[in-house]
Amino acid sequence: MKLITMKRVTIVAEALLADRLQEDVVRLGASGYTCTDADGKGSRGVRASEWEGKNIKIECVVQPDVAQRILKKLADVYFEHFAVIAYCHDVEVVRGEKYS
Amino acid sequence: MKLITMKRVTIVAEALLADRLQEDVVRLGASGYTCTDADGKGSRGVRASEWEGKNIKIECVVQPDVAQRILKKLADVYFEHFAVIAYCHDVEVVRGEKYS
Amino acid sequence: MKLITMKRVTIVAEALLADRLQEDVVRLGASGYTCTDADGKGSRGVRASEWEGKNIKIECVVQPDVAQRILKKLADVYFEHFAVIAYCHDVEVVRGEKYS
Repeated sequence: MKLITMKRVTIVAEALLADRLQEDVVRLGASGYTCTDADGKGSRGVRASEWEGKNIKIECVVQPDVAQRILKKLADVYFEHFAVIAYCHDVEVVRGEKYS
Repeated sequence: MKLITMKRVTIVAEALLADRLQEDVVRLGASGYTCTDADGKGSRGVRASEWEGKNIKIECVVQPDVAQRILKKLADVYFEHFAVIAYCHDVEVVRGEKYS
Repeated sequence: MKLITMKRVTIVAEALLADRLQEDVVRLGASGYTCTDADGKGSRGVRASEWEGKNIKIECVVQPDVAQRILKKLADVYFEHFAVIAYCHDVEVVRGEKYS
């Protein structure tokens, strides 16, 4: 069994952004993602409106450079106008013999 | 793009605790959370009954001192009487230019 | 409050594998798990077919040796034939006074 270190990126956003965000993460290099419905409550920061209601949580496991591109895209394009939070952390991913 | 280190706290509990736990995390300093339905199976430890069925998973991303307060509250108030598990880990959170 | 380091294992797979995977993680030593529905899109690697549709995400928090056994089982048994990804990372788990 071989473990490799990758980044798990988590994006929590208003449900209306689901399609756009899923297209973004794939275009920026993710080979896959999961998308889960979540209730939530949040604030975007000092100047942002509160939001409460249906959110989605998109998660993908990617190489570090892909994680960087996804987080930068979110900060550049979405943060000013939408309720979005995003973060990442290291995970140890198991690869089968066939993929090593 | 600026990344800051925060704590992601995850709480898994029986669904009947959803409202109380959501109020707790906000009162203790979380600016937001997500709450997801989950099926599950678990045990609380040596003296706890098994439980199986509808659970909720509450996640929030907070400063380390808020994470400490949330985990302490759970240990002090809920662990004796309810099926609850809770844990945290570091995440790198992206902030937009506007929020730095 | 006492925190101990454990491993959180995440398995994302086609929904048809839910029952088998839940039985596996318990048999291999997990005292509990959560199972969440997720939409998703993914690829298993160079020789794998794409898949898109209903996935499940199974998560459990276990001792490191149990995490190893679960990941090895997935690599040995499932990766060749099914669309499965799996990874783990450290979490700090809170224990109540009663369980320390």
